[in-house]
Amino acid sequence: MATETHQFEIETRGNCQVLNITEQVGSCLDSGRISSGTVTVFVVGSTAGITTTEFEPGLVNHDLSAAFEGIAPEAGRYLHEETWHDDNGHSHVRASLLGPSLTVPLVDKRMPLGTWQQIILIDFDTRPRTRSIIVQVMGE
Amino acid sequence: MATETHQFEIETRGNCQVLNITEQVGSCLDSGRISSGTVTVFVVGSTAGITTTEFEPGLVNHDLSAAFEGIAPEAGRYLHEETWHDDNGHSHVRASLLGPSLTVPLVDKRMPLGTWQQIILIDFDTRPRTRSIIVQVMGE
Amino acid sequence: MATETHQFEIETRGNCQVLNITEQVGSCLDSGRISSGTVTVFVVGSTAGITTTEFEPGLVNHDLSAAFEGIAPEAGRYLHEETWHDDNGHSHVRASLLGPSLTVPLVDKRMPLGTWQQIILIDFDTRPRTRSIIVQVMGE
Repeated sequence: MATETHQFEIETRGNCQVLNITEQVGSCLDSGRISSGTVTVFVVGSTAGITTTEFEPGLVNHDLSAAFEGIAPEAGRYLHEETWHDDNGHSHVRASLLGPSLTVPLVDKRMPLGTWQQIILIDFDTRPRTRSIIVQVMGE
Repeated sequence: MATETHQFEIETRGNCQVLNITEQVGSCLDSGRISSGTVTVFVVGSTAGITTTEFEPGLVNHDLSAAFEGIAPEAGRYLHEETWHDDNGHSHVRASLLGPSLTVPLVDKRMPLGTWQQIILIDFDTRPRTRSIIVQVMGE
Repeated sequence: MATETHQFEIETRGNCQVLNITEQVGSCLDSGRISSGTVTVFVVGSTAGITTTEFEPGLVNHDLSAAFEGIAPEAGRYLHEETWHDDNGHSHVRASLLGPSLTVPLVDKRMPLGTWQQIILIDFDTRPRTRSIIVQVMGE
């Protein structure tokens, strides 16, 4: 049993951009020696989250952001913004709801995702960001 | 330390059906040799999710689905549906929000769930499905 | 590779109180011998959840609870309450949506959280509770 820590950076546009990071996570697995265990994908920061979706334009460019706009509207009132005089209260709320972490089983050196199931990063911040993703692989 | 991969299939009716899978996950643990570590429960596919709840009829047959209907209404407009000419845009959005994975500690060969806390699968798709659940047990 | 199980209790006021548990989780790591692996933080019970946020008063005392009030209003109709003649249907729904578990990588004996990213417990129940948090550390 061993632990392998991988990290990569990714540029985002913020504003609910949805990025497919399945390939980058897969590359971490390819370069490692662990074939059976778990893969924990974690985004550093409190205005982004990790989950899975079918990565197709309708969901990615419209439907997911529309749902988050319903949950925490960009133009809503956030005391966070009054504290810091910034504009990303909705970004924080959305990120906390989605969560910064996803754990996927690793079986025979691959993740058993569905055919139409990709690992995504959603960046909720209100400006472009460089995000650090930690991919923690544990197993044997 | 070792990894044990278990898998089971479960038939659902879709349409926000909530299924109690605690017993199936527990059976995986009973049949294995690991007593201390973590249990990662993962559903393959992008229209279902995993979490915990008190498995009683009010929450399971009404309250949870009512909340998801508020977050992503079945009759809403989804560009996903215009892409594929299907009807499950809301299913995808709900599944991404809930997430496909849950990790529970394993302590003395049992999961320290609350008395009224069961592991559930929610199938958001619009038709009956056969779901594959991966139960990845790691530890010693 | 080894597993270390830590547990601590924390008093809450319920009613969507947000508690910063980063220090308590960090203490578990300090007292253990594992430096590289994963940390799974799990709350026992079905009316609380775990995630991360920037722990500042605006988000913690207003913005997060306002979003949950939109998702599952306290005064909504919940069949859970008709089943048990209690008042915490919204607490259960919110907890299921947020989830009881968070897994964070452990790298060089620390969790790579952002500067403004703290681990939080949200207690959605309608009364003060004593919560048990399990911190399962795996690695080497």
